[in-house]
Amino acid sequence: MVSKNQIKLISGLVQKKQRFANQLFFAEGVKVIQELLQSNFELEHLYTTQNDFESVLVSKKTLINAQDLKKISALSTPNTCLAVFKIPADKEIIESGLILALDDIRDPGNLGTILRLCDWFGIKQLLCSKESVDIYNPKVVQATMGSIARVNVNYVDLNVFLAQTSLPVFGTFMDGSNIYKTDLPQEGIIIMGNEANGISDEIEKTIKNRLTIPRFGELQKTESLNVATATAIILSEFKRNS
Amino acid sequence: MVSKNQIKLISGLVQKKQRFANQLFFAEGVKVIQELLQSNFELEHLYTTQNDFESVLVSKKTLINAQDLKKISALSTPNTCLAVFKIPADKEIIESGLILALDDIRDPGNLGTILRLCDWFGIKQLLCSKESVDIYNPKVVQATMGSIARVNVNYVDLNVFLAQTSLPVFGTFMDGSNIYKTDLPQEGIIIMGNEANGISDEIEKTIKNRLTIPRFGELQKTESLNVATATAIILSEFKRNS
Repeated sequence: MVSKNQIKLISGLVQKKQRFANQLFFAEGVKVIQELLQSNFELEHLYTTQNDFESVLVSKKTLINAQDLKKISALSTPNTCLAVFKIPADKEIIESGLILALDDIRDPGNLGTILRLCDWFGIKQLLCSKESVDIYNPKVVQATMGSIARVNVNYVDLNVFLAQTSLPVFGTFMDGSNIYKTDLPQEGIIIMGNEANGISDEIEKTIKNRLTIPRFGELQKTESLNVATATAIILSEFKRNS
Repeated sequence: MVSKNQIKLISGLVQKKQRFANQLFFAEGVKVIQELLQSNFELEHLYTTQNDFESVLVSKKTLINAQDLKKISALSTPNTCLAVFKIPADKEIIESGLILALDDIRDPGNLGTILRLCDWFGIKQLLCSKESVDIYNPKVVQATMGSIARVNVNYVDLNVFLAQTSLPVFGTFMDGSNIYKTDLPQEGIIIMGNEANGISDEIEKTIKNRLTIPRFGELQKTESLNVATATAIILSEFKRNS
């Protein structure tokens, strides 16, 4: 049984403002919830339609029916469980190795997919501009498939951060040097730009290393790659010889 | 002005059955429509809220208001225009060079993104299993950003096709040979599997060349990449030395 107040609280967490005010977010589905439980995320409360999650204290768990789950779920087809977690305090930025920095990524699916890529390629630090979509947006949490537990994510003023870093800064443009023919280091900041507008002018000024992903189509008409697939190609290229 | 019958016909085209029965599909937005018009797609009718598309015959064009556009649009925020096109007859399969084959891709966004990747990397032929999402699904058409006009797409029984081809067949698995250390030819069929289940057992039997995308995360916990990002990495690797 979920009370009206709980329904109001949880369904409100689809809004960034409510997540921030309550310092809570939620995740749905056994796999993602298990990954978060095994990591350092602090469980506020678990709602499940099954007798599962034996490791979770009874006081932190409520058995509910599918109708109640539907009321708190953000999915059109709810899973069997939903867990509310505390938003952890920001960790310190790991300013070494390869860092991925997102300049205003707006699509939750893209951010989730990019976080999975960071996890796959062993990128420990993801920086997001303050305008980027919130990592605790339910659609992002679902798309990360648990990777949210293994990559450090910080929201920063990218201009301020880039002005003080001593790491080399990389970005992809139509006129950069061919990524397949450039020696790529194992330390640096790789900037990926907004879905519609690419990298902003102000950030572009800080990028000393301009790269390009060559196109192979004969017609050369494809204007762009989706930002998540471009990130996949770039991270693969940075890591393949490491 | 759009008649009730037209609204019924066009809004029905979100269903595969109706697209097939009428041999029609639709696209929304100036960019995608322009790309399709410039290619060999035959326009059935264009609906626009602006005085644009000057090259389109007056008899093929209707100026409508935003309310009417909303009635026929599949987008939550409709663009300024929607065009209905005839579904072209299947072209012959181009059985040379690199071919991408999709074994039961269900997500329209994934198929659209993969088609853009084919276009970018100069892959001329995309094969889809008959269970894969339809290329003329409105969500696929939108996600392709016009690439649908430049890549040949055929729906086939993949088992039958693979049984008769003389091209080498590639697939990615957890236990394959490292794609970064394998000589990859410029001719062959690359199979990508279903979002949840990967490559089916029957198709797997036909794959003589097992590849793997190495993981770099220390914890090695990331279970999988999204199929579109995996396709990006694989196509990039096949083409980078070509």
